Amino acid sequence: MAEPSRLAVNRRRLLTGGAAALAGGAVLNQSGAAHSATVQSGFGVDVEPFHGPHQGGIATAPQSHGLFVAFDLNEGAKADARRTERETVAAILRLWTADAARLTRGAPALADTEPELATRPARLTITVGLGVELFDRIGPAGSRPRSARELPVFDVDRLEDRWSGGDLVLQICADDPVTVAHANRVLTKNVRSMATPRWRQAGFRNARGADASGTTMRNLMGQVDGTANLTAADFDDLVWMSGPVHPGLAGGTLMVIRRIAMHLDTWDELDRQSKEFTVGRTLDSGAPLTGSREADEPDFSLMHNGIPVIPQNSHVALAHHRGTRERFLRRPYNYDDPPGPGQASNTGLIFATFQRDIDEQFLPVQRRLAKFDALNQWTTAIGSSVFVVPGGVRTPDGYLGQELIG
Amino acid sequence: MAEPSRLAVNRRRLLTGGAAALAGGAVLNQSGAAHSATVQSGFGVDVEPFHGPHQGGIATAPQSHGLFVAFDLNEGAKADARRTERETVAAILRLWTADAARLTRGAPALADTEPELATRPARLTITVGLGVELFDRIGPAGSRPRSARELPVFDVDRLEDRWSGGDLVLQICADDPVTVAHANRVLTKNVRSMATPRWRQAGFRNARGADASGTTMRNLMGQVDGTANLTAADFDDLVWMSGPVHPGLAGGTLMVIRRIAMHLDTWDELDRQSKEFTVGRTLDSGAPLTGSREADEPDFSLMHNGIPVIPQNSHVALAHHRGTRERFLRRPYNYDDPPGPGQASNTGLIFATFQRDIDEQFLPVQRRLAKFDALNQWTTAIGSSVFVVPGGVRTPDGYLGQELIG
Ligand code: HEM
Ligand code: HEM
Repeated sequence: MAEPSRLAVNRRRLLTGGAAALAGGAVLNQSGAAHSATVQSGFGVDVEPFHGPHQGGIATAPQSHGLFVAFDLNEGAKADARRTERETVAAILRLWTADAARLTRGAPALADTEPELATRPARLTITVGLGVELFDRIGPAGSRPRSARELPVFDVDRLEDRWSGGDLVLQICADDPVTVAHANRVLTKNVRSMATPRWRQAGFRNARGADASGTTMRNLMGQVDGTANLTAADFDDLVWMSGPVHPGLAGGTLMVIRRIAMHLDTWDELDRQSKEFTVGRTLDSGAPLTGSREADEPDFSLMHNGIPVIPQNSHVALAHHRGTRERFLRRPYNYDDPPGPGQASNTGLIFATFQRDIDEQFLPVQRRLAKFDALNQWTTAIGSSVFVVPGGVRTPDGYLGQELIG
Repeated sequence: MAEPSRLAVNRRRLLTGGAAALAGGAVLNQSGAAHSATVQSGFGVDVEPFHGPHQGGIATAPQSHGLFVAFDLNEGAKADARRTERETVAAILRLWTADAARLTRGAPALADTEPELATRPARLTITVGLGVELFDRIGPAGSRPRSARELPVFDVDRLEDRWSGGDLVLQICADDPVTVAHANRVLTKNVRSMATPRWRQAGFRNARGADASGTTMRNLMGQVDGTANLTAADFDDLVWMSGPVHPGLAGGTLMVIRRIAMHLDTWDELDRQSKEFTVGRTLDSGAPLTGSREADEPDFSLMHNGIPVIPQNSHVALAHHRGTRERFLRRPYNYDDPPGPGQASNTGLIFATFQRDIDEQFLPVQRRLAKFDALNQWTTAIGSSVFVVPGGVRTPDGYLGQELIG
């Protein structure tokens, strides 16, 4: 039988000496594997740093699994005789910080009732954001970044309340789905007297290790998705807030989460060439229609018989930045949920983006796409939310958002 | 930026020469990686054999992701002037066989509208079963194995129609979630004029490669789950049907799928020792309470101060086989879905088992557990189905179930 069930060697025990060591905060990492020659390391022990100027899960190379959970504050807990709404949120952020700091390094959360599920961080990151209305109520007066507000509703949108809004958001990403499930359980449970999930969206990309050469992910329309994106050098300029912002926002960013349904049934009636004209890139390699390799720069001015080779209403022609400010980080995940009654598929993108200024960077692109994008015929936004993502926790005794609302 | 988005090397292109080659049925496998020195192989190219005496996904070492989809025949398609119900099912099985044979080896399905999503089989297996009522209607007279019928309802069950039954089932497993989504899309789409999904359950285990030493999976109660299971030597005796069965069933098996909810909130109120007494094994290593390593055989007769060390009503004491026939293959997956209104969690096991005789092997254990298992307080079966799994396809021109209903 192939189930490797009766191994004499239990790595967890070898590495940690059991639950007592774990509860004491033992940290597993790559070097842990050196404890025994018979034990090989897997990527489960890989750790992304929690402390620093920025939160994880943004500049982090996308993990295979991403869970997005929006919370609303409980009516009763918002403000009562004992504390203000701001204090409630501070209490949540303190708990989430303590748990996230431990879970991301492979240590169980405080009072973790399943400590063994915490021992494979697998590059776990936990990213926390504050809904724009909540921020307005509890943030320091005048500190809300001007562009941090819900997006306007576009003609092509069919937004549903159950996929939109939220007082708080958690983006939980890791290369192992068990790690994601455990982190979500801990973080949700520990604040449930104060906040309740409003929506939850589970997403995935190709499994880590499925392709050792690290090609760009494909979405479920079959397209190479993620070719033109920010590079490390762009982050200070385009993602992280800085300058005349509130100190609690320095190193932070703004997050847009759009749930975008794909109409796969009609999409699949198109021939390949029509699909490629719709996006402006080929399906096999993801090369622009004016090039031959994925990495080739698209040439939007190239004409053939007087007609642009990359159609003007194609997705990339319209999405491509006009001017240097119209760029932002796309960090989407595929979703594929059970179809509802009468639905043939329930598939799409959890389209998450990060930018320091939504008005300058995201909205001009979104407006062009909403008006003219050929792809609109096969995609529809059904959810939309905007969150303010505070800077990272710089010291072990700090907590997320402390400088904003502490 | 960490997103590996601008790689000059596109492995897919190097390996296959693009979509044309794919459409022609190019097969990717481990050796494919040898085409270029700059290309490293990932496990995406790993292939599980499709043709053979048994279907895949049973003796196959469990993949990281498993999707279980039950179908009902469409009312209109069941039987009409043009064909009988048996002919409709044969048409479905022919389509599924053709698609599964290609997808499992990394080739696009026939008329695959997203051929690029088929290029990473990642050990894809597709296992097909026939519901017991359907089998009764269309199988050769008298050929239904005696024990192939829905399980009796147990006092502790709270079965829901929406998680139970089904005319046909697909178990789709792979180490990459994108592969699973694509296979499901193709297989569901191609038969939709004849059959419609009745329920769909998405499951997961630890990611492949997260732990290179291959420890046993943990379920979301935190327990090591899968220690005592069949070994390769047991399959002929306990899993594969043979002897005086219909030739179409030789090499086949019977599949039970129970959706079992975990009540994590009350479970987590228990202290660790109570949790361990409930199961009869420790939480840290999964060792029996009478041993110190996971692989140690439990000693159910060992007493301490006149009391059994492994409680008699513990899960393993009751689940352990009494006599040699009470054994079967457990191949479960975790599920963790968004909680419904008022629910704090929606978590559990997709408890899939394979055995040649449900009455002899599965039911005696299930009966003991239903009556006495201490774990029942924290788990509830909410779905139940039984499927007849035909033998494998032995030749490239055959199809699944052909000898039964062809
Ligand atoms: C389900 C919906 C969507 C799908 C399937 C999709 C798909 C794609 C694909 C295949 C590409 C080309 C490859 C690449 O550069 O990544 C692309 C590029 C891009 N998309 Fe989307 N996209 C969607 C929605 C959006 C939305 C809502 C926005 C912005 C509001 C957007 C912004 C961009 C940008 C900025 C690029 C890069 C353009 C360039 O500079 O070449 N996309 N998208
Ligand atoms: C959510 C429900 C369940 C959970 C959480 C669960 C968990 C476990 C755990 C932790 C073990 C010990 C480790 C191992 O040997 O794998 C185990 C063993 C076992 N379970 Fe379950 N189980 C569940 C339901 C069932 C059901 C419904 C059956 C059968 C009808 C079953 C049959 C067995 C068997 C046969 C063993 C091996 C016993 C031995 O020989 O030592 N389990 N289970």
